[in-house]
Amino acid sequence: MKILITSGGTNESIDQVRAITNHSTGQLGKIIAETFLETNFPVTLVTTKHAVKPQPHPLLHIVEISNVESLQSSLEPLVKEHDVLIHSMAVSDYTPVYMTGLDEVEQTNKIRDLLTKSNTETKISSQNDYQVLFLKKTPKVISKVKEWNPAIQLIGFKLLVDVSKEELFAVTRESLAKNKADYIVANDLRDINSEGHKAFLVDKETEQLASTKEEIAQLLLKLVLEKR
Amino acid sequence: MKILITSGGTNESIDQVRAITNHSTGQLGKIIAETFLETNFPVTLVTTKHAVKPQPHPLLHIVEISNVESLQSSLEPLVKEHDVLIHSMAVSDYTPVYMTGLDEVEQTNKIRDLLTKSNTETKISSQNDYQVLFLKKTPKVISKVKEWNPAIQLIGFKLLVDVSKEELFAVTRESLAKNKADYIVANDLRDINSEGHKAFLVDKETEQLASTKEEIAQLLLKLVLEKR
Repeated sequence: MKILITSGGTNESIDQVRAITNHSTGQLGKIIAETFLETNFPVTLVTTKHAVKPQPHPLLHIVEISNVESLQSSLEPLVKEHDVLIHSMAVSDYTPVYMTGLDEVEQTNKIRDLLTKSNTETKISSQNDYQVLFLKKTPKVISKVKEWNPAIQLIGFKLLVDVSKEELFAVTRESLAKNKADYIVANDLRDINSEGHKAFLVDKETEQLASTKEEIAQLLLKLVLEKR
Repeated sequence: MKILITSGGTNESIDQVRAITNHSTGQLGKIIAETFLETNFPVTLVTTKHAVKPQPHPLLHIVEISNVESLQSSLEPLVKEHDVLIHSMAVSDYTPVYMTGLDEVEQTNKIRDLLTKSNTETKISSQNDYQVLFLKKTPKVISKVKEWNPAIQLIGFKLLVDVSKEELFAVTRESLAKNKADYIVANDLRDINSEGHKAFLVDKETEQLASTKEEIAQLLLKLVLEKR
């Protein structure tokens, strides 16, 4: 059984110097990878330059990506040749289109036209007091996984911030159905800290609680083995 | 002689999950700190969580900051009690004010009014196809250093992308005068790669070339000792 894991956070460039990113460190994906390697499953870890990574291991293959575009193109062939995808990477949901001074936006009749522009400069000037950055939605990579490989076991992740358990489960089950995922690890940023990492492994009917990253990884291993 | 060094890149939060950052790794600041520690100068390194850092050393004190605001408040008292500041940190020049869907921007008569708004949600919704992020200029921390401590030796950094040597020197000398810096390390992103790190140590009259991070650090040590 070949395990594909994603970890870390994608990075969307504004220009050659600036980027939009997220606070993901890759720590959870690293622990999940180590847990599967300990059980002697071959693991492909798709991650980013800055993410923390497991020590080299004869069964571990690491693929580095940067932004959503490179994630998608790297993942498609890999999904087709793996049996399980544990997609813990924090994928940017927006990517920069165009950044300009507030003046240009104020002077434009049809703001939507600015979406057809792009920056040609390599480092956008910092003369203006205010800048406006237009962003567009990135493709939802997780929604393509079962198209690429209907037989793959798909485990997604959903991170919300400061919501009720009911809302967390409702949003998670919506994502579960939409992406044809087998499980989704649902967590709230409020419950991730130096003390622990509370998460629920959610499927259509059940929610199983884990309290640390190690417990999440062990529970994933158990569920993957059961579904095999 | 007490040496204050900044390294890494500041991180400006958009919400609790997303942030704007830059590609700085902290590698150069790490090497500069190590170079001064080897000569037994006490070093205070102001850096970020994700930056690479020197090994612990009895003369090294590390202070972690996140964004421009925390940089400024941490740096002010430190500048007053150090003799040299080598400010290699990549400081964000803009920070998020407000992020909203394109619809709200299109429907607003006076776009400037949106600058008075702020996001109350902890994770901004990703329903819209397009988002618009308004950013404002951050305070120029380097311009305050000589106000805080007129006697400090100040070494700034200037990173441009793909410009001529003439333009690089002109922009650098403008920054040198404006910030009352003693030297500025001028570099072009094009010249920073796995092969080396080309930079010029620029003062009012001269430009001294270094070709690697180690050479930059050695040259800084030499110049600081000369000026003492």
